[in-house]
Amino acid sequence: MGSALASQLLGEELWLSGRNQARLESLAASLGAQIYPAAEVAALAQAVSLIDLLIYAAGAVERALIKEPSRDLFAANFWGAYFLLRHLRWNPGGRALFLGAYPRYIAYPGFGLYAASKAALEGLLEVARKELKDVSFCLVRLPAVRTPLWAPLGGAPRGALSPEEAAQKIISKLAPPAYSA
Amino acid sequence: MGSALASQLLGEELWLSGRNQARLESLAASLGAQIYPAAEVAALAQAVSLIDLLIYAAGAVERALIKEPSRDLFAANFWGAYFLLRHLRWNPGGRALFLGAYPRYIAYPGFGLYAASKAALEGLLEVARKELKDVSFCLVRLPAVRTPLWAPLGGAPRGALSPEEAAQKIISKLAPPAYSA
Repeated sequence: MGSALASQLLGEELWLSGRNQARLESLAASLGAQIYPAAEVAALAQAVSLIDLLIYAAGAVERALIKEPSRDLFAANFWGAYFLLRHLRWNPGGRALFLGAYPRYIAYPGFGLYAASKAALEGLLEVARKELKDVSFCLVRLPAVRTPLWAPLGGAPRGALSPEEAAQKIISKLAPPAYSA
Repeated sequence: MGSALASQLLGEELWLSGRNQARLESLAASLGAQIYPAAEVAALAQAVSLIDLLIYAAGAVERALIKEPSRDLFAANFWGAYFLLRHLRWNPGGRALFLGAYPRYIAYPGFGLYAASKAALEGLLEVARKELKDVSFCLVRLPAVRTPLWAPLGGAPRGALSPEEAAQKIISKLAPPAYSA
């Protein structure tokens, strides 16, 4: 999703961050973007200077019953967003866009930590809207999208959007003047 | 809240756990209860054998803007509940009661991590209901209660219930036959 969203913003001054360095480098080369590793959020916030638009598309999923061991999905689904909001500095009119999930679609067996971490993000954003008054927040709840996130679940469901379709829909809805690719 | 709830269950076979060992010991002596430190959830689950009723009243709060450093409130507000659900074993008809919060009352500046951790708990419970079919789940959203949780916030608001009033209301609503103190 991050790649598809960034590609919609070709021509803008872009900073990309993520966990897969090889994919980041390849994407950055094709978009003329700069990159920064995902591990160092505070340093990233210093490096990128003032932000017009943050798109937080990081996400992790793993199917595990509550009775079973699981990766901690909060790092990608919650804490990354939290520390960006802590450290980023914004241009006037700055906007922040987060990818959420419909609670009723994810409250299924095996998705305990996923549902919890996505709910945590939404709870945080409700407060962030009230604290960071100079930033416009947008939470996008997507239907299913055919991304690698579905791989551990046996693939995306039928009717899932392609990442490109989803990204085009999202970016086209952002208010003009900027970013209406 | 934990003390008040436990006191409503005088006469039952009680296991108490919490972070304040001195308070635990004093309460256990007055209720004839057994105690277990809060840090070792898996060992606790082994020690207590089969559960009829879990009451999860642990909670932490700190007022900090997202831009400010904060304690990680997820340990008490989320992970304790998660690991109990992972490890506890239940008697038939087992029940699990959690203290939640009204999202609209906590979505205020300074409560980012509190709102997020409480939302995470509710997201987890939606899935837990579907995974742990032999357990009845109950999420209690209380109005304000005069507990030490309010100390860092300058005290409880006017009209707040006493812990004893709140505990009596909660326990009296649990279905008979057991625990209707």
